[in-house]
Amino acid sequence: MIEENKKIKNKGAGAVYTQTYTFDSLKLESGDKFGPVTLAYETYGCLNPEKTNAILIVHALSGDAHAAGVHDGKDNPGWWDDFIGPGLAFDTEKYFIICSNVLGGCKGSTGPSSVNPKTAKPYALDFPLITINDMVNAQKVLVDHLGIEKLLAVVGGSMGGQQVLSWLVNHPHSIRSAVPIATTVKHSPQQIAFNEVGRQAIMADAHWKAGNYYDGTTPSKGLAVARMIGHITYMSDKSMAEKFGRAKKENGLPFKFTADFEVEGYLRYRGDSFVKRFDANSYLYITKAMDNFDASGKKPLQETLEGNKVKVLVISFKSDWLYPAYQSKEIVKACKLAGVETTYCEIDSNYGHDAFLLEVEEESHLIKHFLKKVFYAYEVTGEYGA
Amino acid sequence: MIEENKKIKNKGAGAVYTQTYTFDSLKLESGDKFGPVTLAYETYGCLNPEKTNAILIVHALSGDAHAAGVHDGKDNPGWWDDFIGPGLAFDTEKYFIICSNVLGGCKGSTGPSSVNPKTAKPYALDFPLITINDMVNAQKVLVDHLGIEKLLAVVGGSMGGQQVLSWLVNHPHSIRSAVPIATTVKHSPQQIAFNEVGRQAIMADAHWKAGNYYDGTTPSKGLAVARMIGHITYMSDKSMAEKFGRAKKENGLPFKFTADFEVEGYLRYRGDSFVKRFDANSYLYITKAMDNFDASGKKPLQETLEGNKVKVLVISFKSDWLYPAYQSKEIVKACKLAGVETTYCEIDSNYGHDAFLLEVEEESHLIKHFLKKVFYAYEVTGEYGA
Repeated sequence: MIEENKKIKNKGAGAVYTQTYTFDSLKLESGDKFGPVTLAYETYGCLNPEKTNAILIVHALSGDAHAAGVHDGKDNPGWWDDFIGPGLAFDTEKYFIICSNVLGGCKGSTGPSSVNPKTAKPYALDFPLITINDMVNAQKVLVDHLGIEKLLAVVGGSMGGQQVLSWLVNHPHSIRSAVPIATTVKHSPQQIAFNEVGRQAIMADAHWKAGNYYDGTTPSKGLAVARMIGHITYMSDKSMAEKFGRAKKENGLPFKFTADFEVEGYLRYRGDSFVKRFDANSYLYITKAMDNFDASGKKPLQETLEGNKVKVLVISFKSDWLYPAYQSKEIVKACKLAGVETTYCEIDSNYGHDAFLLEVEEESHLIKHFLKKVFYAYEVTGEYGA
Repeated sequence: MIEENKKIKNKGAGAVYTQTYTFDSLKLESGDKFGPVTLAYETYGCLNPEKTNAILIVHALSGDAHAAGVHDGKDNPGWWDDFIGPGLAFDTEKYFIICSNVLGGCKGSTGPSSVNPKTAKPYALDFPLITINDMVNAQKVLVDHLGIEKLLAVVGGSMGGQQVLSWLVNHPHSIRSAVPIATTVKHSPQQIAFNEVGRQAIMADAHWKAGNYYDGTTPSKGLAVARMIGHITYMSDKSMAEKFGRAKKENGLPFKFTADFEVEGYLRYRGDSFVKRFDANSYLYITKAMDNFDASGKKPLQETLEGNKVKVLVISFKSDWLYPAYQSKEIVKACKLAGVETTYCEIDSNYGHDAFLLEVEEESHLIKHFLKKVFYAYEVTGEYGA
């Protein structure tokens, strides 16, 4: 498989495909049972016979199961393609990588756009108000199904980092290590506010119709505005200045208020392309799950983490103002106070929050060595062979 | 007048009223002539016989001519009420204060919602694409009309600060001093981006109809979203955390995605109340003017300012991330390099950009002493008596 991949591409996971796994029901955090649940997922590399080299990668708000490689006949590299492949941070020659689309998503997993078997129509707002912990509990069912008792690592940035923290807190015996990147124990009011304005933009769209738009025009204008707000928060003031400056371009558009600064054209393009691949109701449900998430639960995080044996690597980025470094330091502090073995690195980057997707070299270096150390620790302790 | 005010209120400008001044036409920066132009304005305090104590206060994006006091029978204090009145920063016992609604506005001055005399219908998008310099040139006509040859000071924050810079650069012989607060020589791509998303939200509203909504439903949902985005950028992460935390409140609203965190309710309230007092097309025109503004014109600001005799006080606020201190320092640097007499203060505040409206004590102190110094300088040089 790896040899085959190498023929297609020098780096990256090569030709990959998306699979699905469907199970009857999931007990939600709310107490309700919900099902059936389908999760779309991809895997890269091979599971070793001991089933000890499996890494779960969890995606951010707009991500999906397609983290690496390309689909047959397509030129669609995964969202973390620079990190996953032979010799890369997640070395597919050593590790078995799993990535699934979250519950509530719209890229193959069950979400508000899925057909409700009871009505034969899309769930829309009949979809339950899911949480980050629900997403993780669904992933746990998938991991169990794949026969993996204990993951070597769970890794993800942004909302992915929230899922990592949920694994760390709720399933500490099912993971050996956790890598929360550019994330937070809980959203600040500013983070909630940005998500809320995105939701308001969607719900302000006349085509939203309280979520019942699946047989007609979608609320694409509102969703595009939500995405544009997102993109501003993903970049730093500095990276925007470097990328766009105040350059203008003629665009031949009819109104006075259409894009003429390059940054306006960029946002417009990002908004327009997003609506082709994302469901507005999924945006509502997923952002709400992010806002409601609080890894510490009902007591301080350090108390929740007492006795936790998972090894933790926390990564933040200097210019990330959406998930600022102080939030990562809160995670580190709670881990340290609880006696959890924790490494922290703030990477010096201008990319803002997007850095977790773009700072390939330094981030890969940190992850690669951390994974090696965790993997090696078990070799030495004899939990499994090399 | 002052005694009368004191009866009504201990501080502030007391009972005030809005006046209008209409003139035939204004030559716009584009070269076009536009008219007639009406400016709504208010004045506080009395002009001295020498006409040397006049201060022009210029407002921000959503402001208007009503900077201080209350209107007859109403409880509607002006937007800078804590700064203008007997003994306050702008002491109405010493100075004559003028504040006018900007050209393009919707609070009494000519703007896109005004009736076009040629068609007897609102201008809507037939309104010309005005600039910050156009707003200032219209103010200059008003100041001339009031018989004031030279203003003691022009003062304003945010977009008001942009107007101050326009006065400084384009009318240096008509002002003795300039106080640009929490502002910038030119918008960064991030500042443009936030404005652009607000504009996109308005134009995404099905009721916007390319600006022709005056005889029907207004694009209030889109405008509310634009305002919510604004409000996030006006506060700091810290001030939001202090004000709201993650507190939730039950609101009895029917959908799953309506406000339940307090910060969501706050944004919603701010958005809803804004649409009652502001015109969506004005929002488009004014934000576009802000984005297009570049005080330095075609050469570096320091060259433009060579030989400029205006005294300058630049104020910024530590937690203001919308108009960060580095932008104020750029103004200071250009002034200093040009040999302009300049004082700079970065006030240590948690309020974010809103600080220019809220940091009453320290800001008042700085302004009061600066104005006194400028006023006194002319007493000593004998330009006018005390």
